Amino acid sequence: MELELIKSLAVPGTTKIVLLSADGLGGFPHPETGRSELETARLPNLDALARRGACGQIRHVAPGVTPGSGPGHLGLFGYDPLRYQVGRGVLEALGIEFDLRPGDVAARGNFCTVDAEGRITDRRAGRIPTARCVELVERLRRIRLPGVEVFVEPVKEHRLVLVLRGAGQSGRLSETDPQATGQRPLPVHALEPDAERTAGLVNDFVAQAARLLADAAPANMILLRGFDQLPALPRFPEVYGLRAAAIAAYPMYRGLSRLVGMDVLKTGAGFPEEVATLGAHWDAYDFFFLHYKDTDKAGEDGDFPGKVAALERLDAEMPAILAHRPDVLVVTGDHASPAVLRGHSWHPVPVILVGAYAAADAVERFAERACAAGSLGTLPAHHLMPLAMASALRFTKFGA
Amino acid sequence: MELELIKSLAVPGTTKIVLLSADGLGGFPHPETGRSELETARLPNLDALARRGACGQIRHVAPGVTPGSGPGHLGLFGYDPLRYQVGRGVLEALGIEFDLRPGDVAARGNFCTVDAEGRITDRRAGRIPTARCVELVERLRRIRLPGVEVFVEPVKEHRLVLVLRGAGQSGRLSETDPQATGQRPLPVHALEPDAERTAGLVNDFVAQAARLLADAAPANMILLRGFDQLPALPRFPEVYGLRAAAIAAYPMYRGLSRLVGMDVLKTGAGFPEEVATLGAHWDAYDFFFLHYKDTDKAGEDGDFPGKVAALERLDAEMPAILAHRPDVLVVTGDHASPAVLRGHSWHPVPVILVGAYAAADAVERFAERACAAGSLGTLPAHHLMPLAMASALRFTKFGA
Repeated sequence: MELELIKSLAVPGTTKIVLLSADGLGGFPHPETGRSELETARLPNLDALARRGACGQIRHVAPGVTPGSGPGHLGLFGYDPLRYQVGRGVLEALGIEFDLRPGDVAARGNFCTVDAEGRITDRRAGRIPTARCVELVERLRRIRLPGVEVFVEPVKEHRLVLVLRGAGQSGRLSETDPQATGQRPLPVHALEPDAERTAGLVNDFVAQAARLLADAAPANMILLRGFDQLPALPRFPEVYGLRAAAIAAYPMYRGLSRLVGMDVLKTGAGFPEEVATLGAHWDAYDFFFLHYKDTDKAGEDGDFPGKVAALERLDAEMPAILAHRPDVLVVTGDHASPAVLRGHSWHPVPVILVGAYAAADAVERFAERACAAGSLGTLPAHHLMPLAMASALRFTKFGA
Repeated sequence: MELELIKSLAVPGTTKIVLLSADGLGGFPHPETGRSELETARLPNLDALARRGACGQIRHVAPGVTPGSGPGHLGLFGYDPLRYQVGRGVLEALGIEFDLRPGDVAARGNFCTVDAEGRITDRRAGRIPTARCVELVERLRRIRLPGVEVFVEPVKEHRLVLVLRGAGQSGRLSETDPQATGQRPLPVHALEPDAERTAGLVNDFVAQAARLLADAAPANMILLRGFDQLPALPRFPEVYGLRAAAIAAYPMYRGLSRLVGMDVLKTGAGFPEEVATLGAHWDAYDFFFLHYKDTDKAGEDGDFPGKVAALERLDAEMPAILAHRPDVLVVTGDHASPAVLRGHSWHPVPVILVGAYAAADAVERFAERACAAGSLGTLPAHHLMPLAMASALRFTKFGA
C-alpha cells in the first residue's frame, strides 16, 4: 500500500496505538522437542492477547528474503522495504547515533590485516578488541581531505564508520572490500558521474590510512563498503497524522525511528525502563514504537533456552503495557531469529492485532504455527500499520 | 519478486534443490463424494512430506486466471508470468522440440475446412488423423518465400507449426483465425511498422497454401495464430547461481526449460525413467526440475479415477526421489486440472516445501483444503523459488 494512499485516508482521532516489536521474534522448532521458542515458552499474557485479538503472520521484504533490522523495521512502520532502501553505511552510522545529516556520505568500515604485498590475510583483523579499535580510529582522525569534513567513528571490535561531509558529495560508489582474502583492497570507483569527486576523496583517505596503520598489524589496513547517503523518507507523523514516539534502548532502532521523523524518547537500558518511559509519555503521543531487543540477541547467539527466557520476560511486562489501555496494540517482530539458525531468517513472524474492532479468531496461542492459521492470514509487514490505523478508527473510507 | 533482487541475494552453496511439478496437480471435489482427486487418493508418502514440511497453496498468474503450461511453469521457475510472456507460437514450436533460434517467427497453425466461397465450416478440419497432417505438411513444405527460410512442422491431428527464419522479421502480427465459422480467414496485418515485411510474407504463404490444399478437403485451408519470437528470458542458472537440470519426458517442458537456460537431460518416456535420470545425474547439478505428466492427462480427459491413480503412482515414486536426500524438495504443480472441468483451471494448487529449515505446520495431508491452512499461506507461484533458495541457505540477508 502506497504511503500517499495512507496519507489520504488518515483522519484525526484521540485513539492510541502501541506497536511492540520483539526483535527477531520468530523462531524455529528445536530438533529434539519439535517446538519453537514461542511454542516452548510459558506466555500467559501473550496467549491471552492472541485469544482476544486477530492473529496472522507477516513477511517483511518478500518470501524467502531474510530482512536486516533496517528493512524489517521500515516494514513495520508501513514503508515497503523494497521501495525505501537505506544503505548499510547509513544504518551503521544510525547504529552509533552519529548525527548524520542530509548530503553526508557514510560507509561501514573495518580494520583488516594485509601482508607485505598488501594482500588481505584477515578481513576482520582478528576481531581486535574495541579499545584497540578506538585507539586506531584516533590515528585515522588525523586524515584531512580537501573540501570535506572527515569523521571516523569506532563501532565495536574491528568495525568503524567513515562519514564525509561537504557540498556535492555522492554515495554512489563501489566498495573497497574484495570480500575475499589473498586479494588487495580495491580502489573505489564512481557508479555515477556525480560521484567522481567523492571516489577520489575516498581513495585518498584509504591511501593515508594505509600509511598511518602500517605498524599496527593485525589492524594494518581498512576496508570500506556500503557507501550511501541519508534517504529522503516520508515522515511517519505526517503520513499517519500521528504524534509518534519511539522507545528503544538500542541506538540502531533509535536512529531508524529518527530517520522517519518519530520523536525518540530518552529511556533506560532495559525493557522495564522502556515500559516506564511509555507510561511517562503516555498523554503526549498517539503512537508508540516500543522495541524489545533480548529475543534477537538470544536467537543470534543460538541460545534456545535464552530466547525462551527472553520471551517469558517480555510476557511478564505485558500487564504494565496493557495498564495504559492502548486502543490498538500490535505485537510482532522485525524478522525471525531462530536459535537453530543463529541469526536472522526469512521465516514469517507471528503477529497479534488487539483492539475493540480487531476481530478475534480461533487462535489461542502466540506462536508461529498457531498464528499462521489466524484471520489476518500472511501479510507483507507494511500492511500492518494500515490495519492498526483502521482498528484505531483513524482511516476514512476509500471512495464513496 | 524481481529476478534482479533474487540474483543480488543468491550466494554459492553445496545444497541441492528438487522442484517436482505434477502437471495439473490441483483438482476439485467429485460431486458424489465431495472429495477432490488428492483427497480421494491414498498418498502415504506425500502425506508424510506434508507433515514434515511447510504447506500452502500457489497461484501462478493471478486470482481467477487459468494458466497455460507455459506461464504455469515459468511461475514455478520464479519468473512472474505476467512480466515474462512467451507467445503461443513459440510454445507450440518448443512443444515439438523445434530448434527455434533468436529472430525466428513462429506461429501455431491448424488445418481447417472452407466452403466454395472460402468461408470456414470447421475450424479443425474434422480433426484429421496425424498421418494425414504429416502428408499435407509435406505439400506445404514446397512453399518458397523471398528472403526467408520456411519451416512447416506437423504437431498432432490438425495442428501444425510455421516458422519463418531470416533477418529483420517481426512476430508482432495479427491472426488469420477469425475464431468463428461462417467467416473467411483474415489476412494478417502488422501490429508494428517493423512487421510489415513479415505480414506480407505470411499472407503470401497462406495464399500459396490455399492453392496447394484446394483438393484436400476437409483440410483444404490453414489458420495461423500466436505469432511470436523467442523472448530473451533471464537465464535461470545465472539468476539463482545454480547448476540446473530439467528432467521431463514431454517436449514442451523440455523446450521451456531450455528457454530459461537449464540443461535438459536425456530421459525415458515414463516417470520411473525420469527418477532414474535424476539419480544418474545427482552429483552434477544443484537444482533439478522434475516433471510428472500423468496427473494433467487424466484431468484433461475428465478421468477422475484415472487422476487418482496417477497421483498414487506419483506417491509410489517419492521414496526413490527422497533416497537422494535433497536438501530442499518442493512438490507442487503448474496449474490445476480438475477432472470435473476436463481441463486447466484457475484454482490454487497445493504445495509442500520440505527441508531442514522449512518449518513444519499443522498440515497432515497433501490436498487442497489441508494445504490452504498451511504456514506458507497463499503465494504467487513465482515466490516459491525464493523460499526454496532460502531454505537451501542460498540467500544472503537483505539490508543490514
